[in-house]
Amino acid sequence: MSLIVQKFGGTSVANPEKIKAVAARVLGYVKKGHRVVVVLSAMAGETNRLVALAQQMQDQPDTREMDVLLSSGEQVTVALFAMAVKEAGYDAVSLLGDQVKIITDAMHTKARIKSIDTGLVTRNLDQGRVVVVAGFQGVTEAADITTLGRGGSDTTAVALAAALKADECEIYTDVEGVYTTDPNVCANARKIDRISYDEMLELASLGAKVLDIRSVGFAKRYKVPVHVRSTFTKTQGTMVVEEDKNMESMLVSGVTYSKNEARITLSKVPDVPGVASKIFTPISEAGIVVDMIIQNTRAGEMTDMTFTVPRPDYKRAMGIVSGIVSGIGAGDVTGSEQIAKVSIVGVGMRNHSGIATTMFRLLAQEGINIQMISTSEIKISCVIDEKYTELAVRTLHDGFGLHQVGKPAKGKATACKKK
Amino acid sequence: MSLIVQKFGGTSVANPEKIKAVAARVLGYVKKGHRVVVVLSAMAGETNRLVALAQQMQDQPDTREMDVLLSSGEQVTVALFAMAVKEAGYDAVSLLGDQVKIITDAMHTKARIKSIDTGLVTRNLDQGRVVVVAGFQGVTEAADITTLGRGGSDTTAVALAAALKADECEIYTDVEGVYTTDPNVCANARKIDRISYDEMLELASLGAKVLDIRSVGFAKRYKVPVHVRSTFTKTQGTMVVEEDKNMESMLVSGVTYSKNEARITLSKVPDVPGVASKIFTPISEAGIVVDMIIQNTRAGEMTDMTFTVPRPDYKRAMGIVSGIVSGIGAGDVTGSEQIAKVSIVGVGMRNHSGIATTMFRLLAQEGINIQMISTSEIKISCVIDEKYTELAVRTLHDGFGLHQVGKPAKGKATACKKK
Repeated sequence: MSLIVQKFGGTSVANPEKIKAVAARVLGYVKKGHRVVVVLSAMAGETNRLVALAQQMQDQPDTREMDVLLSSGEQVTVALFAMAVKEAGYDAVSLLGDQVKIITDAMHTKARIKSIDTGLVTRNLDQGRVVVVAGFQGVTEAADITTLGRGGSDTTAVALAAALKADECEIYTDVEGVYTTDPNVCANARKIDRISYDEMLELASLGAKVLDIRSVGFAKRYKVPVHVRSTFTKTQGTMVVEEDKNMESMLVSGVTYSKNEARITLSKVPDVPGVASKIFTPISEAGIVVDMIIQNTRAGEMTDMTFTVPRPDYKRAMGIVSGIVSGIGAGDVTGSEQIAKVSIVGVGMRNHSGIATTMFRLLAQEGINIQMISTSEIKISCVIDEKYTELAVRTLHDGFGLHQVGKPAKGKATACKKK
Repeated sequence: MSLIVQKFGGTSVANPEKIKAVAARVLGYVKKGHRVVVVLSAMAGETNRLVALAQQMQDQPDTREMDVLLSSGEQVTVALFAMAVKEAGYDAVSLLGDQVKIITDAMHTKARIKSIDTGLVTRNLDQGRVVVVAGFQGVTEAADITTLGRGGSDTTAVALAAALKADECEIYTDVEGVYTTDPNVCANARKIDRISYDEMLELASLGAKVLDIRSVGFAKRYKVPVHVRSTFTKTQGTMVVEEDKNMESMLVSGVTYSKNEARITLSKVPDVPGVASKIFTPISEAGIVVDMIIQNTRAGEMTDMTFTVPRPDYKRAMGIVSGIVSGIGAGDVTGSEQIAKVSIVGVGMRNHSGIATTMFRLLAQEGINIQMISTSEIKISCVIDEKYTELAVRTLHDGFGLHQVGKPAKGKATACKKK
């Protein structure tokens, strides 16, 4: 008999029928004697409906009130879910963020969890109830409602699992788990059985949408075993766990890509101290997050500076940079929205050299030019022309042998069929 | 500069445009220097939408979870309203029932307010904010969300006004105030300028829907002046206040009617002690509320017993009574759903005899037979055949001179035109 936290997203609870189906699934665990805490998101579409209402009231909706508004979405789902459990003859109780006492900071719409009081949840579990917690929401010490931002229900689930010392946190979603790459791009993408927290962190930050990155951070810090699996099948999904020896034998665990960035290049920037600060301070002050920055040395006292920004911020960033270019004595400003970032991730990289070389060679063999490179201990990212994205993903996926279970790549298999 | 509590119902805040219009109206008071607390209902239609969802989950939705579900409706409105005030350049804060600490008992879906903590509201008012409170909801001492039942937002407003010692509680609605009778039935129904708490209590209990009866009780107990007025015009509405001499000069203040009842008659009931208890205990145990009960003495040891029940409960009540009729040795059971209760209300009745006689004569003149009669100190109700309802209302309205401002009736004016 174990204690399990199970989180279901908006598509899993999109309507009364789906809520009943999820309740039946949860009761399968209860009938086996498990203690279950369920964390739910708002019904699919509800958050967007509420945001649209807010935008009719205020151009930039007040964030405190936005949180009051948005948190009503999860409130509806948990009440309906508790009813479904009761209708099936079992006991249940819904709890909101402020009832559980999920205490957060006061950064409305993107609050961070500071502490969770497990008392009320535990007391209800002890009384044999299914405890249904509203995801995505918390409360400040001053009793203001907060929300945790996109993917916040994942964070609620993992944080609750950590606080309750649960045996496992199951994240139910509309895919079967974490894949070696996007199955929509590469038909023979393979479900990963086990992946380390660090790899999952990189995959989440590099565009894999299956799990919110903050929840992975929580899971890593508190060593919560996370099971990412499908709401619609019984098959085992992906276990996100601590690194083990077996993982290290895989050089590369996954290939990911993002088309959400744009590139800006300043040419002939004077290579003097302080120039980078002059460029990036106004961008940062405009709330634009710069991802990669690369500086190429030129002959003489000039340098070229290239960086990427989120694509929705591209025009604003270009405007800011164009405004300062003459002030710092730089040359042209050029840029492109037609770029993509393709990345490989794997803890095995730590102990193997030559992974980067293989990546560059695989891309070169397909005639794909690399515009920028960024690396960490367990990932390598390349910025390329957007039109080559899918080709690059397939090439790297099969080049590193990710379609073959448990077989580290030698860089030649090409089983991935173009869709 | 005064402190005003203003309550707006669901039709007044039915969509973003209407919410903005209400915010503009409230700000008119703020600009004059008043301190304003706004109490809001859910957007029109929202409560029904949520109830329909609940009924898809459970035949008899769990009442605790129903309250969690329904309270989300007001949460949406108060957040949107606070945004509208901020967009107009003023400060505002939304507060939910549990944030204000509107403490209630644990009777879910029909909870009663036990206490209100004015601290947070006052602190926000002191900071120059419009305080926007979610109506209809409270919280138990155990931190469970409760709702106050239909019309609960009126109660929230009046209770808040009482707790804050507000100068006035304005109830904004879609009519101009309290009328001498239903304007849909009687074209020359007149808006009442001032009415006593007691009269308003009777009118509310007898079918006038403009103000929730519990809110009137609160207003009476704490002597809160309540101003019932229209959201859509600037005209003065009806002041519900303590009784004064002027009111007593009116014999009758209003005529009301209800078509929500049904009549059941048991004939030849043995006239022995305990028989009434045998009839009404099972009805009460089935949760059916009996309104009027009349017992006619027959010759011998038999009596006829007639009573009314809410029309939706008629068939169930008939079933129960039919099941016990032979056990108590009674005769037939008959009944009708085609009845109506027509009532006249007025504090002036206390000091004037003959009002009842005039009422019976006016009805008789139109050939309307009276089936049952019930009286209190300030009201007389008659049950009649449903088809005569409108005729009876018009006859009594004009017969008691209610179309004439300030002129007590002599029982002959007939200005009320049939619609």
